[in-house]
Amino acid sequence: MASVDVPVALLGYGTVGSAVNRLLTDSADDIERATGHRLRVVKALVRDAGKERDYPPSGGVLTTDFREIADDPSIAVVAEVMGGVDPTASSVIELLNRGKHVVSANKQLIAQRGPELFAAASAAGVQLRFEASVCAAIPVIKVLRESLVVTNVHRVLGIVNGTTNFVLTEMEAGKSYDEALADAQARGYAEADPTDDVSGADAAAKMAILATVAFNSRVGLADVAYTGITTVDAADVKAARDLDMVIRLVGAARLVDGSFDVRVEPALVDKQHPLAKVDGAFNAVMLQGDAIREITLEGPGAGGTETASAVIADMVSVIGTMGTGFLQNDAAWRELPRLPSGESSSPFYFRLSVEDRPGALARVADELAQRDVSIARLLQQPNGNGAALHVVTHEARTGALADALEALGSLPEVHKRSRPLPVISDRGVSELGWA
Amino acid sequence: MASVDVPVALLGYGTVGSAVNRLLTDSADDIERATGHRLRVVKALVRDAGKERDYPPSGGVLTTDFREIADDPSIAVVAEVMGGVDPTASSVIELLNRGKHVVSANKQLIAQRGPELFAAASAAGVQLRFEASVCAAIPVIKVLRESLVVTNVHRVLGIVNGTTNFVLTEMEAGKSYDEALADAQARGYAEADPTDDVSGADAAAKMAILATVAFNSRVGLADVAYTGITTVDAADVKAARDLDMVIRLVGAARLVDGSFDVRVEPALVDKQHPLAKVDGAFNAVMLQGDAIREITLEGPGAGGTETASAVIADMVSVIGTMGTGFLQNDAAWRELPRLPSGESSSPFYFRLSVEDRPGALARVADELAQRDVSIARLLQQPNGNGAALHVVTHEARTGALADALEALGSLPEVHKRSRPLPVISDRGVSELGWA
Repeated sequence: MASVDVPVALLGYGTVGSAVNRLLTDSADDIERATGHRLRVVKALVRDAGKERDYPPSGGVLTTDFREIADDPSIAVVAEVMGGVDPTASSVIELLNRGKHVVSANKQLIAQRGPELFAAASAAGVQLRFEASVCAAIPVIKVLRESLVVTNVHRVLGIVNGTTNFVLTEMEAGKSYDEALADAQARGYAEADPTDDVSGADAAAKMAILATVAFNSRVGLADVAYTGITTVDAADVKAARDLDMVIRLVGAARLVDGSFDVRVEPALVDKQHPLAKVDGAFNAVMLQGDAIREITLEGPGAGGTETASAVIADMVSVIGTMGTGFLQNDAAWRELPRLPSGESSSPFYFRLSVEDRPGALARVADELAQRDVSIARLLQQPNGNGAALHVVTHEARTGALADALEALGSLPEVHKRSRPLPVISDRGVSELGWA
Repeated sequence: MASVDVPVALLGYGTVGSAVNRLLTDSADDIERATGHRLRVVKALVRDAGKERDYPPSGGVLTTDFREIADDPSIAVVAEVMGGVDPTASSVIELLNRGKHVVSANKQLIAQRGPELFAAASAAGVQLRFEASVCAAIPVIKVLRESLVVTNVHRVLGIVNGTTNFVLTEMEAGKSYDEALADAQARGYAEADPTDDVSGADAAAKMAILATVAFNSRVGLADVAYTGITTVDAADVKAARDLDMVIRLVGAARLVDGSFDVRVEPALVDKQHPLAKVDGAFNAVMLQGDAIREITLEGPGAGGTETASAVIADMVSVIGTMGTGFLQNDAAWRELPRLPSGESSSPFYFRLSVEDRPGALARVADELAQRDVSIARLLQQPNGNGAALHVVTHEARTGALADALEALGSLPEVHKRSRPLPVISDRGVSELGWA
């Protein structure tokens, strides 16, 4: 078939933008073979067209004028790789309104303004793709939208932030939080200001997007309950090891009786669980659904070339499906309710400092039982004059557990209690075989 | 947009075929939302239309006459879920020639007759998709063809047979080969006649398909060198454990200076490597490429519903891209040479029974060095009157290693030598961070 020339534009020409231009140039033949189209970057919006660039585009491509892209009817596809939420959102909406397909690598944009953008794309009959916004080149969005169309995905578990995974892995090896973070910064895994990563905000945006796509529902950043890793200490790390688990920052999205529950928090993960095996700065996402049981995707969750590869995969998919209606539906076409926070449930871990005397354990067990919190594992260790009691519960409602912990705190036998951490030990399958 | 009715047909109505019909019926709304089309099974080719079925289709759907499908111009998409190579291949080719898109779950068909089928699809301007032919619902074909278009995938490593992975996992836990296989049969993971699985033939067909798609080259079943697990014994399992590794049946496809090398054989896998962590009957495929470093996909590699889910994902993708030219190219458009077998290289493990006397080790080391085989790890253990010498080499050519082992066999100090097993310990990345 004859090759069709497709002029494309970039919003932004930083690390990702220039990698997109380079990969598009290097892979023009591969793309033509797959789609019958040749993609060519004709415009790239930048703040300073005179700045020196690592991979400079052809003359006349860099522009500081958004109108040169928005008003050019020959540009069919635009990749948004500049970041930011405002005014990026209004630029993207204008492009969609004008009938241009948009590919975005911007997790905050999609997590915060997704519903507006999806609706604009849907109304204009164009596509908005955003593979690169979550875990770079790991193709989890495509897999959810195209491979798992007929499986009801009801749970998504993910390690979606490489910085915190690296820090926690290093703490496991004996480093303090501060040492591990400094090491991550020295290796370029963490920014000079690591707040977005260590606070859980970065992971929360990714989980909002994954929940949106998995459950086809509006799930915004504001719907995600998140806690970072700054409160994880050596005692947590040691307790995890004693229980044959590791501490990881886990994103969990569940569909519970038609309500969604999305959270990001440090969790104890059983060493046999796939998420415990994710090394250093890598990311992994586990999808559990009816027809597939569970599928796990693992890979580097960041990096300029990796992100650019995902941006181009989206462009190729847009080109390959233009004009067919495929994936021009609103990704967030329904609005499910959010599960009330106390209703969320999970197995939990917590520890208590108790007096080492007869009856202490019975009192603790009794307070838990009164609130329907049952004990799955118990580890008692000597601790100064008293004892440390490590408790892993069976699945319990967050609300019930909070009540129980409050009651335990007022027992005279209990001197100290840790905050509870969820425990991830189950798989999407009762047994790892097949039917 | 108005919904379009799409009549589809099935070749075969066994476990997978009936699951396809059930999932299509249950998920008609989801599919319509994604594609604007409603898929409806109108014909299913069977041998006996009167046989009782678990999920019987509507009246008139079952037919024993292939012509009712081939000659019906209203049928746009056909799923081949009946298995077999002949006459299945000629039926599929006729359907493609008549302008019907075909989705196949048949690994032997694609591995043995792929090039013919791809060429027929290409000539007719229709699609041939085959996600379900490799690892059921793990979407590795889609990821390779659509997400990794611009990354040069140069290596594919896989655990692509669940039966053998289960057997080897159980042998690790102390069972004999026969006990582990009997257990796999009792659980339904292995057929009554497990030859295809334990011989490596099943894994070889899957690796041929993966190599074809990854390297865009004709790679047939006959191009895959394969060995099964029947020769793995307790001594291998113990040696692996002593070296902090596990034994797995690993499929490996590499592109080496423009030639492909595809093999399936028992290998020693470092416990830290992602493939060592694949549990029981699960499958995993690791893709290594320039832009992505490495991406690993893991999940159940078999099962009726899982396979049906992949068949439907392919149908949905066909519907979503019909008439666009996307993926109507020949998946095996080039014909790369096969790497001569002696040129293949890998780190290897082997063990020798040697006399425990001064100079024995020096003689062994010398014979290896003369053939450019260098030692990476050495473990000497007492063994009766003599010693067992466990040797892990650095990367060595297969041919050079074979020569060295022959020379070692004729040394008077060496009483016995094991066959060599490749060692998998490296990742696609030198370090698990990002750039």
